[in-house]
Amino acid sequence: MIKNKYQSNYVIQPYAESPQLTRVIQGKDHAGLVREVNVVEERPLTIFLNAKEIVTVMTIGDYPEFLALGFLKNQGMLQSSDDVTAIDYDEELETIVVRTLSQTNYEEKLSKKTKTSGCAVGTVFGDMMEGLEELKLAPSEVKISWLYELASKINQTPSLYLHAGAIHGTVLCTKNLPLVYMEDVGRHNAVDKIAGWMQSEAILPDDKILYTTGRLTSEMVIKTANMGIPVLASRSGFTAWGVDIARQVGLTLIGRMRGKRFMCLSGEKRLIWDATQKDIKDISKKILRKGEIR
Amino acid sequence: MIKNKYQSNYVIQPYAESPQLTRVIQGKDHAGLVREVNVVEERPLTIFLNAKEIVTVMTIGDYPEFLALGFLKNQGMLQSSDDVTAIDYDEELETIVVRTLSQTNYEEKLSKKTKTSGCAVGTVFGDMMEGLEELKLAPSEVKISWLYELASKINQTPSLYLHAGAIHGTVLCTKNLPLVYMEDVGRHNAVDKIAGWMQSEAILPDDKILYTTGRLTSEMVIKTANMGIPVLASRSGFTAWGVDIARQVGLTLIGRMRGKRFMCLSGEKRLIWDATQKDIKDISKKILRKGEIR
Repeated sequence: MIKNKYQSNYVIQPYAESPQLTRVIQGKDHAGLVREVNVVEERPLTIFLNAKEIVTVMTIGDYPEFLALGFLKNQGMLQSSDDVTAIDYDEELETIVVRTLSQTNYEEKLSKKTKTSGCAVGTVFGDMMEGLEELKLAPSEVKISWLYELASKINQTPSLYLHAGAIHGTVLCTKNLPLVYMEDVGRHNAVDKIAGWMQSEAILPDDKILYTTGRLTSEMVIKTANMGIPVLASRSGFTAWGVDIARQVGLTLIGRMRGKRFMCLSGEKRLIWDATQKDIKDISKKILRKGEIR
Repeated sequence: MIKNKYQSNYVIQPYAESPQLTRVIQGKDHAGLVREVNVVEERPLTIFLNAKEIVTVMTIGDYPEFLALGFLKNQGMLQSSDDVTAIDYDEELETIVVRTLSQTNYEEKLSKKTKTSGCAVGTVFGDMMEGLEELKLAPSEVKISWLYELASKINQTPSLYLHAGAIHGTVLCTKNLPLVYMEDVGRHNAVDKIAGWMQSEAILPDDKILYTTGRLTSEMVIKTANMGIPVLASRSGFTAWGVDIARQVGLTLIGRMRGKRFMCLSGEKRLIWDATQKDIKDISKKILRKGEIR
């Protein structure tokens, strides 16, 4: 467990000044002056499920095992019943292979599918929606005061975002405590890395809150629901379909979290209104503004 | 040509209050009060190239023809030499079929590919990178004052973003004039719609500037380069690989445009420093801040 002056509850938090994850690049600013800026890395990673090439994602490159496992899980390509025997990462080839004891249902489905349509891309979304009807999310409770505390703690945690910008973050939380803070150039990657970590550590989702810097689109809501997490919160806004799906599966969806304001468009029954705006001490405007721009 | 009090040069600009593109949704705010918010729509659209299903993208749903054509073009699946005979959009089925006179190279390549790896997803990136080495971008000039004017005009243009948020925008510009302003829930869709429009109208890219609200990732830089546009500017930040590719193909890459500040990390030789910070009149802080948050 990493500890620092901001937080002591993180199991994983950003390695903000990792020389592998950012680079200093020289350029010219608006005044024509030479300046150096920190820029995040972005690398391809090709994910295989056994012998099948599934996708090439662009990632900062940390936690490739969690990313691959979480991606396959969140896309419905890997079921809980599939026995993962190995995850082989090759840094040089930029590939990662998730191996299961026997061929998965998805590989079978894909073999059939490719005969007719020739491609897996189009099936991805259909696969993700599968099984959502039977989903039962836990009837957990969420205190408003936790949401304010989480936002404040997360915004003040040293991160690649604060160091270099141009990156999305997702944080797995319980009550008012952020536990696992992942960042990535693709916002879905950050969520997938959390899913992979939860899968690896056999973490129960029922009491969790997922906080993201990204928008609350259909895909983000489906991923959260598939992870079994009943609450998804973001500083960004909603899409209509994201709201529709959240209501359909009974997920609590909170967006536009800025300082002491937010909107809840689904699953408000989980919320406990224990805080008023005056109860919450001011968050530094500077930090808040920095955290908002993306 | 649509005219309004803000701009008279747009060929296409956002239909900000379209009842098809946004919806009013009721929810509860931080104080537990019932409120209504405008939320953007998000719909699946499955793109076919002749008989081949290529991808399902999530889109707001406007300009499906431009989106499909631009996507296939930007992914290297459709060459300039391919003769597009029809684009058939089925709103109910949420499908769009781009038809060419004869089978394309890509379909052939895909048929071979699926025999070995079974899936097209992994090949997409490789295909996009193909041909970048031979690319020659025009040695155009960009006045700094144009960049400031463009940002100001774009931020003040009525848009789905200002109306409902949670959406990305991309604007095709020439000199200090924004010409085509597309928005979409996926930032790549907005770029693809512009590519499709350029293809349909046979627009030359040499004197164009592409402005985007999204981050300057590898994919965004590759798309811009493939479109032949020599300048890409954004209010958001960079990834290191995005900068690498821009330098490799000689594309001018400007990021972190906020008010009167920006950083140029590639192709600064196109810039003409004709404006100082004092020359540019203040942009309303309110508009600017609204335009920045995303």
